[in-house]
Amino acid sequence: MNLRIPGPTPVPDEVAQAGAAEMIDHRGPEFAAMMERVTTGVRDIFQTTNDLVILTTSGSGAMEAAVVNHLSPDEPVLVCTIGEFGKRFLELTEVYGARPTELAFEAGEPADPNRIEEALKANPQIRTVLVTHNETSTGTTNPLKDIAAAVKGAGRFLIVDAISSLSSIPVEVDNWKLDVVLSGSQKGWMVAPGLAFVSMSEESWEVQKRTTTPRFYLDLKRAQDSAARGQTPWTPAVSLFFQMDKALELIKSEGIENVYARHHRHGERVRQGMQAMGLQLFSREGFRSDTVTAVLCPEGIDVANLRKIARTEFKTVLAGGQGPLASKIFRFGHLGYCTDEDVEAGLKAVEQTLQRLEYKAPARA
Amino acid sequence: MNLRIPGPTPVPDEVAQAGAAEMIDHRGPEFAAMMERVTTGVRDIFQTTNDLVILTTSGSGAMEAAVVNHLSPDEPVLVCTIGEFGKRFLELTEVYGARPTELAFEAGEPADPNRIEEALKANPQIRTVLVTHNETSTGTTNPLKDIAAAVKGAGRFLIVDAISSLSSIPVEVDNWKLDVVLSGSQKGWMVAPGLAFVSMSEESWEVQKRTTTPRFYLDLKRAQDSAARGQTPWTPAVSLFFQMDKALELIKSEGIENVYARHHRHGERVRQGMQAMGLQLFSREGFRSDTVTAVLCPEGIDVANLRKIARTEFKTVLAGGQGPLASKIFRFGHLGYCTDEDVEAGLKAVEQTLQRLEYKAPARA
Repeated sequence: MNLRIPGPTPVPDEVAQAGAAEMIDHRGPEFAAMMERVTTGVRDIFQTTNDLVILTTSGSGAMEAAVVNHLSPDEPVLVCTIGEFGKRFLELTEVYGARPTELAFEAGEPADPNRIEEALKANPQIRTVLVTHNETSTGTTNPLKDIAAAVKGAGRFLIVDAISSLSSIPVEVDNWKLDVVLSGSQKGWMVAPGLAFVSMSEESWEVQKRTTTPRFYLDLKRAQDSAARGQTPWTPAVSLFFQMDKALELIKSEGIENVYARHHRHGERVRQGMQAMGLQLFSREGFRSDTVTAVLCPEGIDVANLRKIARTEFKTVLAGGQGPLASKIFRFGHLGYCTDEDVEAGLKAVEQTLQRLEYKAPARA
Repeated sequence: MNLRIPGPTPVPDEVAQAGAAEMIDHRGPEFAAMMERVTTGVRDIFQTTNDLVILTTSGSGAMEAAVVNHLSPDEPVLVCTIGEFGKRFLELTEVYGARPTELAFEAGEPADPNRIEEALKANPQIRTVLVTHNETSTGTTNPLKDIAAAVKGAGRFLIVDAISSLSSIPVEVDNWKLDVVLSGSQKGWMVAPGLAFVSMSEESWEVQKRTTTPRFYLDLKRAQDSAARGQTPWTPAVSLFFQMDKALELIKSEGIENVYARHHRHGERVRQGMQAMGLQLFSREGFRSDTVTAVLCPEGIDVANLRKIARTEFKTVLAGGQGPLASKIFRFGHLGYCTDEDVEAGLKAVEQTLQRLEYKAPARA
């Protein structure tokens, strides 16, 4: 099956096999050494010297960790939303009693750094900004460097969900001064789901210390204190650490710049291929994601039906739309362990599925 | 290496290999079918018809889920503690702002159902009781049936940490009327760490609904609502579901009654073997755990040194003590995937380690 969804992504055989290694003591020296290697490897790809902790949760757990460690009840916060994962951040701030102001952009559009700057000027009481780097629900990549310049230029604290970009699209945590940055194992990292990564600037620790929201399992200070002893506060997902250890080797051997180039090449190819079939891309040109492409489902074709045929007849798993886009778009993932052949086979499957549905490409203008 | 700690436990090859299967869509039909099988299989071993949800966390995450879904701020609660994991429950109730009364029993002792009954009589305002079934830190198994009779007889709500007992030691959730019951994949289930199980009685859902503590990632209602569609609210640890699916097959094929009998036999053998070396068992007779044995470290022998020699010279990983018992006991795990040969080899390694440390067994009385 050609798994062309934006996560979980295919796991290379070597990585999957590494995860099947003999179980070890999570409080012993082998685990400590592995944790050190994995932490260092992930931190390098984050392009940071900040502390980085690893949690046994999926990406949403890391989003919650960012919120409960850095926002107190009744605290005003700006949440920039360009899709479902921005909305998840918004909901998290609401659930934990912060007072969010939502700066929403239309689905398919990126966040506008100028509007963020204005919003911060208009709301001097807001200390913290939450933003999604790569919005998988719309296939849109935010201009994070410019957003960070606006937020940090205004002296605010910045929390970034880079779950589906980090390791696939460059994120320069230190250069861009990103305070809290999140990612998850099941995306570009080529590992099964269940581990999440959180990098924290020096300022993050100060904010964390004064944040009054209760936390325990997701307490980042506990994680950091244990990490100093080569451990985790709670039993970690050891088999996923084994996988990460191997996946980082593969990334290193390919070269991270080559990994980025591959993702960009695949993004370009998928966009070009979809358009060549007469399909319309959902997100704005210049901000289309190199990890997932969102495509408008042609009129008269049911997304669920398209996905079902692609899956059952052409062995390709596409993603549907989420929330209000459920019946409007389908999505094609091209992140993590993905070869040129996977991309070509996926495009071919889309083409065959559309033929099977008697889709007629619109006449060229 | 003979991994003789009380979790993570050794994973059978077939289970580890099952976890290396090709990644699948967590929102697709294969995952839904697997989730149904795993949920049903786990629920059968819980001996319950209650709802059961599966979380991507370690056991401590499930403990937090039990607390944040069932205890509101300022709510009085009784926490029975017989060791470190009881203390963890206590700390969780404190972190989340409940008002715990601790009913502490000396390390090595079980909780006394009569004292629980008295405490509930003396504290009519307490609605909820938290208790550990099997306390891995002291190698003590609480008389859960009798405790449940006391708590439920007094009309209270009962939350049970059965993380290290369930699937190894019988727990009759329905017969004993246990409201919320927790377990974790890395114990008797023979699976790598990262999944946790929570069963909930009908009353639990009513309590959950009125509980005001905020929660999101660990919200059990969200988990249950998604489960009704064969999904999880957040990306699940798919490779660990693959492992669970296979491990449940192995348990079924051995027969759960045989699994219990094996654990009891190994418990007996380890207790007898340790005593035959002149060592003293830490916990009270009649309440010694069939999943982990705690042994008093003989005078003049350093626990860390004993563990190091067992590990480096005799290829056996023993656990140390936790908290105040760190320098007083060592622990020998015999749960999950553990054969007679593993037990014998582990005992032999303890014996050789003691010889190497020039330990002299005390003269028999």
